[in-house]
Amino acid sequence: MRTSQFFFTTLKEAPADAEVISQKMMLRAGYIKRAAAGIYTWMPLGLRVLRKVENVVREEMNQAGALELLMPAVQPAELWQESGRWEQYGPELLRFKDRHQREFVIGPTHEEVITDVVRRDVKSYRQLPIHLYQVQTKFRDEIRPRFGVMRGREFLMKDGYSFHSSFDDLKREYGNMYDTYSRIFTRLGLKFRAVAADTGSIGGTGSHEFHVLADSGEDDIAFCPDSDYAANVELAEALAPARSRMAAAKALEKTHTPGKMACADVAKFLELPLGQIVKSIAVISEKEDSKQTFALLLLRGDHELNEIKASKIAAINPFRFATEEEVIAHLGCKPGFIGPVGIDREKVAVFADRSVAVMSDFVCGANEAGYHMTGVNFGRDLPEPEIFDLRNVVAGDPSPDGKGMLDICRGIEVGHIFQLRQKYAQALGCSYLDESGKSQVMEMGCYGIGVSRIVGAAIEQGNDEKGIVLPAAIAPFEVCIVPMGYHKSEAVKAAADQLYADLKKGGFDVVLDDRNERPGVMFADMELIGIPHRVVIGERGLKDGQFEYKGRRDAEATMIAQSDIVATLQGKLCAV
Amino acid sequence: MRTSQFFFTTLKEAPADAEVISQKMMLRAGYIKRAAAGIYTWMPLGLRVLRKVENVVREEMNQAGALELLMPAVQPAELWQESGRWEQYGPELLRFKDRHQREFVIGPTHEEVITDVVRRDVKSYRQLPIHLYQVQTKFRDEIRPRFGVMRGREFLMKDGYSFHSSFDDLKREYGNMYDTYSRIFTRLGLKFRAVAADTGSIGGTGSHEFHVLADSGEDDIAFCPDSDYAANVELAEALAPARSRMAAAKALEKTHTPGKMACADVAKFLELPLGQIVKSIAVISEKEDSKQTFALLLLRGDHELNEIKASKIAAINPFRFATEEEVIAHLGCKPGFIGPVGIDREKVAVFADRSVAVMSDFVCGANEAGYHMTGVNFGRDLPEPEIFDLRNVVAGDPSPDGKGMLDICRGIEVGHIFQLRQKYAQALGCSYLDESGKSQVMEMGCYGIGVSRIVGAAIEQGNDEKGIVLPAAIAPFEVCIVPMGYHKSEAVKAAADQLYADLKKGGFDVVLDDRNERPGVMFADMELIGIPHRVVIGERGLKDGQFEYKGRRDAEATMIAQSDIVATLQGKLCAV
Repeated sequence: MRTSQFFFTTLKEAPADAEVISQKMMLRAGYIKRAAAGIYTWMPLGLRVLRKVENVVREEMNQAGALELLMPAVQPAELWQESGRWEQYGPELLRFKDRHQREFVIGPTHEEVITDVVRRDVKSYRQLPIHLYQVQTKFRDEIRPRFGVMRGREFLMKDGYSFHSSFDDLKREYGNMYDTYSRIFTRLGLKFRAVAADTGSIGGTGSHEFHVLADSGEDDIAFCPDSDYAANVELAEALAPARSRMAAAKALEKTHTPGKMACADVAKFLELPLGQIVKSIAVISEKEDSKQTFALLLLRGDHELNEIKASKIAAINPFRFATEEEVIAHLGCKPGFIGPVGIDREKVAVFADRSVAVMSDFVCGANEAGYHMTGVNFGRDLPEPEIFDLRNVVAGDPSPDGKGMLDICRGIEVGHIFQLRQKYAQALGCSYLDESGKSQVMEMGCYGIGVSRIVGAAIEQGNDEKGIVLPAAIAPFEVCIVPMGYHKSEAVKAAADQLYADLKKGGFDVVLDDRNERPGVMFADMELIGIPHRVVIGERGLKDGQFEYKGRRDAEATMIAQSDIVATLQGKLCAV
Repeated sequence: MRTSQFFFTTLKEAPADAEVISQKMMLRAGYIKRAAAGIYTWMPLGLRVLRKVENVVREEMNQAGALELLMPAVQPAELWQESGRWEQYGPELLRFKDRHQREFVIGPTHEEVITDVVRRDVKSYRQLPIHLYQVQTKFRDEIRPRFGVMRGREFLMKDGYSFHSSFDDLKREYGNMYDTYSRIFTRLGLKFRAVAADTGSIGGTGSHEFHVLADSGEDDIAFCPDSDYAANVELAEALAPARSRMAAAKALEKTHTPGKMACADVAKFLELPLGQIVKSIAVISEKEDSKQTFALLLLRGDHELNEIKASKIAAINPFRFATEEEVIAHLGCKPGFIGPVGIDREKVAVFADRSVAVMSDFVCGANEAGYHMTGVNFGRDLPEPEIFDLRNVVAGDPSPDGKGMLDICRGIEVGHIFQLRQKYAQALGCSYLDESGKSQVMEMGCYGIGVSRIVGAAIEQGNDEKGIVLPAAIAPFEVCIVPMGYHKSEAVKAAADQLYADLKKGGFDVVLDDRNERPGVMFADMELIGIPHRVVIGERGLKDGQFEYKGRRDAEATMIAQSDIVATLQGKLCAV
């Protein structure tokens, strides 16, 4: 492609309402153009990137044995009523009536439609398993669309659905998709992690998310650098500390801590490490039988409560945080100075995090404003607590798979694989006849990739002050040729045209910047739009038979002999 | 692809509500599955065809210098209000409100969105011309969706829009698209015709339709086999006959024609050719000044009135057909026996078709029930009429381009190119600065292809009692291998697997039917789904080193040496 025949529309400044870096850069680079809130036009440059992502996804899905089909975007309401989601789904589901007043939705997802297709066509176990997928524009009426194409309302998605005659076979295909997704993100050249959406082990789990790693990501991921373990921070198990509790060494004392309510302030005031303070979080559970339970959740001062984990304690499921009035009513003291010592255990339940259970000589509130207890020890000063995993993991925690220590990173979810089991097959009566002629409900899996979201996520992962930095596999062009004086120097023009022809012939995705612009403008544009390899052709270099090469991430350009340039680029592109 | 790994869902019978042959066959072959009225899922088999069509369209559009982008399906109402189409467009335009009660449409077409994109990005004549296109799922809320994918509500379309700094440059690109569309339909292997949507000459016209020829088509096309001339029958000009009027030979007579009202009955009764009878059609025009004009339109008995042409007569524009009461009031006789002889020309206007003007000794109604006038001659028996082109052309008429005789065929419109000129650019303020720095409104063209419609049209053109007959370029597979006894004979299995591997390696799009089915079932399925080339492998042939080859249209199979089969298929596929 020659820039003179392309449609470049780079901007000096991103629009003021762009929030995140990828959105700003995509608008500045002319990848996309806003049409309405969360709705974008993919301009020719951006569409090249989108299609490259789409093609990698398609190739790998086909390679994995899935079959592509194309379901309608507009779906009849009847199917959603049958599955029950017509009522369950919130206002993100765009519903409308056609001219005959029949109800439809614009599909944000296609479980109902695909289950309807399969129940009509698949009758026998001999037709199973089957995995059908599509790459399709979807619509989800987000209440607050944001982050450009990462949380738009109209977006491109690959959604696949597999159908099986047994749970074992579903698990086999789930593993196949786990591997396929890993191959896809590897081929796209992205740093990513497969994250267990529940227990964290691949075998028995029902759901994995695939995250592109980026500091700006919305999700915290706990992962083990020494193994495959990765889980959403909220879901990673915090193991019990390997060490056991030390014997008490200090006496219990009530200590004046005037105005020190936060653990950090108390630790600083007492000149103790934060990990020596225990924080008490007061919660209330009101069960259906109207019996109210007031409880203290004990965590180390440097840890955070994990509400999902806490809600798994049967005695307080479900729970809410106690109000100041309720805390005063139960403990005679306002929050900030409350603690588990000297309280009526008939009226106040106490649940301690695993890491609190091994503490000794610790500090906690004294249930008296302005005072904390120091030198506190379980067994001696208060009863042993019930022990649970109540906190988010932190960097340095042991990995739940026993293979090292956890680290924490941030990610953007771009893929999700899920064992649906029989939820939709049951609701829609999607069954088959087994070997003995008996009707059985199918097992089902679903597998999604946010194709347009990947483009945003890749730019969140790859950018610098000059603009977009993309892997060659998904950059709009792999190589750019920037001639200095294409319209002035015959020699430069001839060399540029020749190299352009050679690279095209060699199968490179190359763009020749033949605009009559200053070199600075051309360099800035090619960097902004994220071309990974740049060859500059100038009269001076040509005299020595040389081109100037610079990788998008390189600090300096290097001179390369004209005769070596194709081989050099080949090497760079294969190495990616 | 092996059928055992594909998803075949052929049906013995088409659903009862399927109306046309392509719809029936696509449902039977498992190309598509109905989701709602006018809304279909493209099953894996059908999607292969759809994608092949799409790819040819994309390749040729890129080759022609157009740039692909992707606009949103969901469009803000504001743009439609700006162009005025918010009011003008009927209920086919699906309008809806999002969760914030903002109004949107699901785009049936994208003139507004593309004009908005271009007005925001293009400022200078140096950025023109530009041609942007997309391949996108569109929605049009048809009141009565029918004919399967040929008039569905959700459909895949290629729509392109070009922008120019002059009308001349628009005409250049229009010619480029005329050629590109011709290449596209040629490559797809379809019999087609470019049809002028108005005057019929390529140069100065503003619009052409591209029709796939099929007897079941909705549109009648007049074309000249000896030239490029083609036009919708309603729009083709009927030239004046080359011959001049013969001298009167008969005397005027009032002849009893009891009960003979239709021209054909009169001709038969009088033993005259139908072309010797003149039919008089009574019309009334009521102008704004409330003056009423009553007129007779005279046509040859074997010709049909063309209302579009008649409405171009200024004196009766607009007109409607006169009621029986009105005819009696003006002529004293009910329709069936009316005519232009002996009437008060002050009160009744007479307009004759060009072919009537050269008639002599003709027959017309006598304005008396049960009687016709015979031996009628202009000039002698009634005044010379005003002469116009009032009729539809018929086969045998001279071609308006003077290059031969017209023939008539039927077609299905699958493409349309159109010179929009400044309609949208004016309404949306899409302008540029010319060489002298002056602001000018852009000239604009638009170019559409119904991608999914082509699949239906191709099947209307290609089918027989066994099923679908498609050109190799768009068939779901080019070649099928049908082994007789794949699961019983080692030799057959080995030969089939080997040929399958050889053909795949040779770049053929091949399917191996390795299902454990009877040969009759496999033959019928492969014929139904439209595979153009079939190789049957059986033990008997193998003994002689031979395969059986049969083209989809061939009456008989032929035996071909195993060693020649690849070359034979290569020849057949290149020949297409």
